[in-house]
Amino acid sequence: MAKRLFEYQNGDEMKLPVLIKSADVRVAKNGKKFIAFILQDTSGHLPAKLWDASDDAIAQFKAGEVVQLSGKRELYHDNPQIKIYGIRLATQEEGNQPQQFLERAPEAPATMQEEINDFVFDIVNPNWNRIVRRLLAEHKDAFFSYPAAKSNHHASGGGLAFHTLSILRLAKSVGQQYSGINMPLLYAGAILHDMGKTIELSGAMSTEYTVAGNLIGHIVLIDEEIIKAAQELKIDPQQEDMLMLRHVVLAHHGLLEYGSPVRPQMVEADILHQLDELDASINMMLTATQHADPGTFTQQLFGMDGRRFYRPESLQHYSGAGNGSANKHG
Amino acid sequence: MAKRLFEYQNGDEMKLPVLIKSADVRVAKNGKKFIAFILQDTSGHLPAKLWDASDDAIAQFKAGEVVQLSGKRELYHDNPQIKIYGIRLATQEEGNQPQQFLERAPEAPATMQEEINDFVFDIVNPNWNRIVRRLLAEHKDAFFSYPAAKSNHHASGGGLAFHTLSILRLAKSVGQQYSGINMPLLYAGAILHDMGKTIELSGAMSTEYTVAGNLIGHIVLIDEEIIKAAQELKIDPQQEDMLMLRHVVLAHHGLLEYGSPVRPQMVEADILHQLDELDASINMMLTATQHADPGTFTQQLFGMDGRRFYRPESLQHYSGAGNGSANKHG
Amino acid sequence: MAKRLFEYQNGDEMKLPVLIKSADVRVAKNGKKFIAFILQDTSGHLPAKLWDASDDAIAQFKAGEVVQLSGKRELYHDNPQIKIYGIRLATQEEGNQPQQFLERAPEAPATMQEEINDFVFDIVNPNWNRIVRRLLAEHKDAFFSYPAAKSNHHASGGGLAFHTLSILRLAKSVGQQYSGINMPLLYAGAILHDMGKTIELSGAMSTEYTVAGNLIGHIVLIDEEIIKAAQELKIDPQQEDMLMLRHVVLAHHGLLEYGSPVRPQMVEADILHQLDELDASINMMLTATQHADPGTFTQQLFGMDGRRFYRPESLQHYSGAGNGSANKHG
Amino acid sequence: MAKRLFEYQNGDEMKLPVLIKSADVRVAKNGKKFIAFILQDTSGHLPAKLWDASDDAIAQFKAGEVVQLSGKRELYHDNPQIKIYGIRLATQEEGNQPQQFLERAPEAPATMQEEINDFVFDIVNPNWNRIVRRLLAEHKDAFFSYPAAKSNHHASGGGLAFHTLSILRLAKSVGQQYSGINMPLLYAGAILHDMGKTIELSGAMSTEYTVAGNLIGHIVLIDEEIIKAAQELKIDPQQEDMLMLRHVVLAHHGLLEYGSPVRPQMVEADILHQLDELDASINMMLTATQHADPGTFTQQLFGMDGRRFYRPESLQHYSGAGNGSANKHG
Amino acid sequence: MAKRLFEYQNGDEMKLPVLIKSADVRVAKNGKKFIAFILQDTSGHLPAKLWDASDDAIAQFKAGEVVQLSGKRELYHDNPQIKIYGIRLATQEEGNQPQQFLERAPEAPATMQEEINDFVFDIVNPNWNRIVRRLLAEHKDAFFSYPAAKSNHHASGGGLAFHTLSILRLAKSVGQQYSGINMPLLYAGAILHDMGKTIELSGAMSTEYTVAGNLIGHIVLIDEEIIKAAQELKIDPQQEDMLMLRHVVLAHHGLLEYGSPVRPQMVEADILHQLDELDASINMMLTATQHADPGTFTQQLFGMDGRRFYRPESLQHYSGAGNGSANKHG
Amino acid sequence: MAKRLFEYQNGDEMKLPVLIKSADVRVAKNGKKFIAFILQDTSGHLPAKLWDASDDAIAQFKAGEVVQLSGKRELYHDNPQIKIYGIRLATQEEGNQPQQFLERAPEAPATMQEEINDFVFDIVNPNWNRIVRRLLAEHKDAFFSYPAAKSNHHASGGGLAFHTLSILRLAKSVGQQYSGINMPLLYAGAILHDMGKTIELSGAMSTEYTVAGNLIGHIVLIDEEIIKAAQELKIDPQQEDMLMLRHVVLAHHGLLEYGSPVRPQMVEADILHQLDELDASINMMLTATQHADPGTFTQQLFGMDGRRFYRPESLQHYSGAGNGSANKHG
Repeated sequence: MAKRLFEYQNGDEMKLPVLIKSADVRVAKNGKKFIAFILQDTSGHLPAKLWDASDDAIAQFKAGEVVQLSGKRELYHDNPQIKIYGIRLATQEEGNQPQQFLERAPEAPATMQEEINDFVFDIVNPNWNRIVRRLLAEHKDAFFSYPAAKSNHHASGGGLAFHTLSILRLAKSVGQQYSGINMPLLYAGAILHDMGKTIELSGAMSTEYTVAGNLIGHIVLIDEEIIKAAQELKIDPQQEDMLMLRHVVLAHHGLLEYGSPVRPQMVEADILHQLDELDASINMMLTATQHADPGTFTQQLFGMDGRRFYRPESLQHYSGAGNGSANKHG
Repeated sequence: MAKRLFEYQNGDEMKLPVLIKSADVRVAKNGKKFIAFILQDTSGHLPAKLWDASDDAIAQFKAGEVVQLSGKRELYHDNPQIKIYGIRLATQEEGNQPQQFLERAPEAPATMQEEINDFVFDIVNPNWNRIVRRLLAEHKDAFFSYPAAKSNHHASGGGLAFHTLSILRLAKSVGQQYSGINMPLLYAGAILHDMGKTIELSGAMSTEYTVAGNLIGHIVLIDEEIIKAAQELKIDPQQEDMLMLRHVVLAHHGLLEYGSPVRPQMVEADILHQLDELDASINMMLTATQHADPGTFTQQLFGMDGRRFYRPESLQHYSGAGNGSANKHG
Repeated sequence: MAKRLFEYQNGDEMKLPVLIKSADVRVAKNGKKFIAFILQDTSGHLPAKLWDASDDAIAQFKAGEVVQLSGKRELYHDNPQIKIYGIRLATQEEGNQPQQFLERAPEAPATMQEEINDFVFDIVNPNWNRIVRRLLAEHKDAFFSYPAAKSNHHASGGGLAFHTLSILRLAKSVGQQYSGINMPLLYAGAILHDMGKTIELSGAMSTEYTVAGNLIGHIVLIDEEIIKAAQELKIDPQQEDMLMLRHVVLAHHGLLEYGSPVRPQMVEADILHQLDELDASINMMLTATQHADPGTFTQQLFGMDGRRFYRPESLQHYSGAGNGSANKHG
Repeated sequence: MAKRLFEYQNGDEMKLPVLIKSADVRVAKNGKKFIAFILQDTSGHLPAKLWDASDDAIAQFKAGEVVQLSGKRELYHDNPQIKIYGIRLATQEEGNQPQQFLERAPEAPATMQEEINDFVFDIVNPNWNRIVRRLLAEHKDAFFSYPAAKSNHHASGGGLAFHTLSILRLAKSVGQQYSGINMPLLYAGAILHDMGKTIELSGAMSTEYTVAGNLIGHIVLIDEEIIKAAQELKIDPQQEDMLMLRHVVLAHHGLLEYGSPVRPQMVEADILHQLDELDASINMMLTATQHADPGTFTQQLFGMDGRRFYRPESLQHYSGAGNGSANKHG
Repeated sequence: MAKRLFEYQNGDEMKLPVLIKSADVRVAKNGKKFIAFILQDTSGHLPAKLWDASDDAIAQFKAGEVVQLSGKRELYHDNPQIKIYGIRLATQEEGNQPQQFLERAPEAPATMQEEINDFVFDIVNPNWNRIVRRLLAEHKDAFFSYPAAKSNHHASGGGLAFHTLSILRLAKSVGQQYSGINMPLLYAGAILHDMGKTIELSGAMSTEYTVAGNLIGHIVLIDEEIIKAAQELKIDPQQEDMLMLRHVVLAHHGLLEYGSPVRPQMVEADILHQLDELDASINMMLTATQHADPGTFTQQLFGMDGRRFYRPESLQHYSGAGNGSANKHG
Repeated sequence: MAKRLFEYQNGDEMKLPVLIKSADVRVAKNGKKFIAFILQDTSGHLPAKLWDASDDAIAQFKAGEVVQLSGKRELYHDNPQIKIYGIRLATQEEGNQPQQFLERAPEAPATMQEEINDFVFDIVNPNWNRIVRRLLAEHKDAFFSYPAAKSNHHASGGGLAFHTLSILRLAKSVGQQYSGINMPLLYAGAILHDMGKTIELSGAMSTEYTVAGNLIGHIVLIDEEIIKAAQELKIDPQQEDMLMLRHVVLAHHGLLEYGSPVRPQMVEADILHQLDELDASINMMLTATQHADPGTFTQQLFGMDGRRFYRPESLQHYSGAGNGSANKHG
């Protein structure tokens, strides 16, 4: 069976099927066209360029197609990329189903759904419980297949649900350590906080912002969903518990300049905001350092203010490393 | 008939009925209590302090009461205030109806309503027209009696409608000068943009922020009203024209740090934002300079970044001054 | 007669005379030289590249020359550009007069001058009136032929006067709506506010910053002009009305960080600042959205904080659009 | 037995012994002196003023003294304070030992020490382990008795150790959820991160900044302690594991503008920074909301950007509240 | 002969004549008026309050009057102030000439003028030389008697000239160390840079901002003086050397947000800006630390971003202190 | 003898030996590799590109090698670069010693060392004196051969010592002008302030940041050196004079956001910070303007906020230019 994309090292000759994640046609400084590809399989994604691309090639090799690739893994400005030797569309017999090449969150949708349902069970306020159940049901397919963001963190299929679940787990730990936190509110807010991304983004493949995403944004879009669900369930969106739930969701970006129309003014709103950042940043940092060589710094992480992170040379220091299995990154 | 509050000069002995706008009980540095009043009638409002206030006085002189006042107008740190000689509750015979003492916008609700209806007539998109009509009808009483803000600009009764109308008039001028602006969208956005203040604020008297105002904010509150109205009118809040209307309203604060969840990304959204600021700032600057003496600067205006504005000494330069009658400030 | 630059669509073969607005010689990554042109006629301007440029071509094709061009309109990174098939200098018979290819403001200099003179008539303060008349006369040629900026807004020939006139018209509307504004001061300030650009910029073609523009800036340069004119007219630049006029002009960028040495501290100074921004931004937004396809966003506008603006898909919403004829953009 | 300070309600007459936490002599606006006290016992602290203070009273009632107080709890600007009826020094028989009146962290030093030692046990890198053990031993008394800050969060006796322990517990949860985190590094960094406060601050009572605290700051002060300990233990502070430990400690304020000389550039450094903020903010928010009345907002919290936090009216929503016992606030 | 203000220690009984620098009438919280004085003589200035001030006292004790004072020096919030026992206007016999009580720069006007003239001699460019001579002559009286600022640094009489001279001395040192600096330009810019303060400020006593100071600011005011002088001397303000001189003066605040309309874009402009800050800050820091007790920090210095500066306990470290005599502060 | 790099003009054919300062292999847009060189000799450094580089060329031409070069000096985007005709490794006979091609500070290490020792002699506090002597001795080789920064200012060999010496000279001038400055402290701080760069940077050639440089930074690294030296000399790093010295060094970046863990809170700390900036900026500005043509602006200087500096056309104005010989830039 063919090796996957990230099972090749720098300098290796490669031969494998991959999915075209994006294909950007550009004009080189010599006036000829080339295609800048991002190619992916379940192990990750890498860039590659097809020089002197014919009109025929441009027509064939589009985002969403599965191709048979031969080439070589090289370094360009310290970043790995693929030098293409040959490329052609995969045949039906070879298995050209794009879905099978998508990067995926480390846990399966069904498993995640089950664990999230356990958290829903702990939302004892009946209004919150009904709202959450209804919206989970309504957006189920997108919620368990979308990424949590176009790039940056949890950008894989199912990343949205996985990011949500990770926050719920962190929230549970916090609730066990501090008394006085309204856990049903924190759980309900965590489950809903990014669900508006199912409307803001176009889908699991070739993800783009929708017009609604650009003009309204996922924060107000989920508020809209809550209001509509409440209307249908005959719950007044202006009663105190509904204002609380909406506030926790609206405030989760923490600062006005990050797009929240109000700053956190409830204990649970501020905690949700912090746990959201904690999980997203841990995801970005661990992913990046795992790809760095020992004794070097990662590339600049744009989701972390452009900082670079150090991977120590002497790995034996990791002997007591965290052994959490939930978020293990294969 | 009694002179009104602003018809007395510094040093004048005063005797007149006024409304207690606010009454704040404090402890002086000698350990005794006093009441810090803001007193008002239709000509404006001024501070006054009642020293050595008895428990009885504290119980009687509360915000919303009409009182008979005798005292003297003095300057304190360059600001006028009233030195109280005597104060007692007004009797029914003397006319103790708080409503009659509120500062009011320069135009009557009925007149404003009529002119706003003319603008509604020009909203030719049927969805926007129906939404605007429904919300104007639903919030009519508050919309034509509330101030536009707790303090700063248009803080008088009816100020919300008057500020809205002033923006509509400016918008009309702009529409006559530039072609290519979607005027129905701009008018609909202008009418709705601050209507959420009818939910954010507690009322025309003793105005405070409500819990919904603090936790959700007037920008998302009017978005909620639009969504609910659309639901009831069987209009999909996700269709393009509805996204456009909601965007124009959501973006009207211009910057994320001023509380808009999205920045203006449509021509009409940016124009509405600028006209909103233009009208509010003209209102603040003209009000302040009219109270300043020729050849001096006003107090610092907090709604204008703390700037002070100069009123020229040589008034004859005003001979060609703008003669707009609409917004004349008595 | 030949079609103009913007009368061709993407994919069209083109053949027309154009003016070289700028010609930047660069070295491609294969070591060969090419020329990056901006080509223009009265309909607008577009980029084009001439690959493998000979020394002869570099010597001939300079900014300010009229050329006969054949090529094709293409898209590059979503932006239109011209693929050059052939290019040669235009002969005298073909009409190689650069002036005839400049983009121009939508109104003729003579018409604009007449309308501006009407505004000057309303400047009843004799000192302001004399200063304005003298400086208008002294800088007349440049004032009616220069652009208002190197790029961004009103970058066409005559753009400076047209931008000034647009502000005057907005100012007039504002003066009709609000009483208490010193209209002569506002008109005088509006006419002079950007006149220093006739010294800051090098001219209507191949516009660059002058040394005085870089070291002093147009705001202080027009203050210098006012002082010199006052000296010659025996008006003391320190008397109150002159301080007022100079303040309104000096403060028109609104914020110190935008280059004004003082913030607006008079009502008219702040209004001029706001109307200046309003006209410039409407010009940028309308120009950009008119070039965007329905249902898409414009390119990032650098004069608008890098925002992109949405042009709606369903154009019928424009049925009630502003019908201002003054600033119609062909 | 006497009720404690926070066992009285507004309006209650009080009679109890308290410790003077601070005593600030001021001159009232009538020219007479008064003492502004902060009085405390183990239940918390409240302000009180002694008017017309004699020189004798000023000499007697100093910070650190235990006094017998009679008075009444009142509200002043919505904040509780004590109106003093009588005050005198406590006699030896009445028990005038200041230590017994200090607010204390919710867990005893011995208990905390034991749990922290368990964490030290998990620091398997021998250099980190030895450094941590040595510094814990050296600063033991101060570490388990000092507050974590002069005011803001964990300002009680033992607050420094308790804040440290809370972070360790959060770190442990995070380590169980994510794999790839260097837990020994995170634990070592957490234990040392604020230990420099034992040098920066003057002590558990009447806490002030020392000269070293002002000129060097607790971040570099603990780096100094690490270097000196390493010297004595013959460990090179420049070897990689020592650079890692020092980095995690130096970077824990997260941003340069908050006083860290470097930003977090290791996974563990960033996590420590986030958990530090999470614990401090939860402590501040829960303390404040527990003192607020249902349906109201807290005072502005200066450690939380001046935000006010809402305590909901309908308390039954808390039925599922977090039941963590560790950080329960009596 | 009477001791001067700063020759008394805390707790000393005082009896001396002083000048009233400012006298602010306020109302105490018991409703009675008091006067908040700043009293000064050549040794410095201190606050004092006169309680229960009669109308007669308010009428007599105004800024600019010399009074005979008896009282006591006390500490209030760590700041020294005077408790007034008795106060009366000084008689003619006692010497009531305000000029004799003003704080003064450490060098005499005539001495400073002579040294500045030496620098003028080194301005070999004839245009700069003539402009500088003319403006020095024209503003001579104010230039050698005004303070450099209302408060902050060099706020004493003659401070403007002394600050200018200090910068010239620093500039000379810099010119001796680095080659390639245009020293005539740097000297000319230094002499003129703050001369606009003679128009911006009202005078040496009871210093306030003038209307021209508020509306135009001292930076553009000196540019105006340069232009007018050039006109009269038949020098074109637009020729290169004049643009250079004006640029150096206009840019001396360094940043746009500090009021310069252009940032320094010449070597000499940037150096002048830095030396201006260096001299002003050294003046503020040395003045403040000399008033602090050994082993303590100064009050917050508002001209230094609110920082407090440490005066070491062990003074013997100063044995090698700078022995510059020029700027010695008595 | 061969001309040096900067002795050729634009358009000149060149033939000379140079050192490869850096060699960056990239892929051109036509898919072929090229090497982007920075070539240097003692006169300065210039970029050059080798197109279509063979694997053999890539292997040979690495940073640190001396090569024989033939080519032509050209302009690219207004910046000079070299067009390569031929390149080969220099032979031993031709003199291929990299050290002889490094740019060097304008004064020799031995001369600088002597003058710095004179300053050490004036550090009369024995503790500071011993610490400074010890660290100067310990880091002598690196201190007199390293640059002061990777790029920006004083980036030449020996630049670190030369920058230090320049600050000492400025400090001496300041000490002669103002009394009350602790000169031994200022001298000690100046000598040590950037000495941590000998640990932060990798060396005089191919300068990079070390791991310690990235994770700890040169400010805390020199604090570490001071602590270790003090330990060995039996001086307590917590005694007042040591806190003072460490403070002056730690605070020398002036602002927290520039990496100082504390802001300057002593007179000498603030002066050191200002002189550090003054010397660095004069170095950058003079170097840049000397390379600009008369009547033009320099390239943007990234160390000066991206500003460009003007070199006047009329050079005769320099007749009175500073004749400092110390920092003359050949």
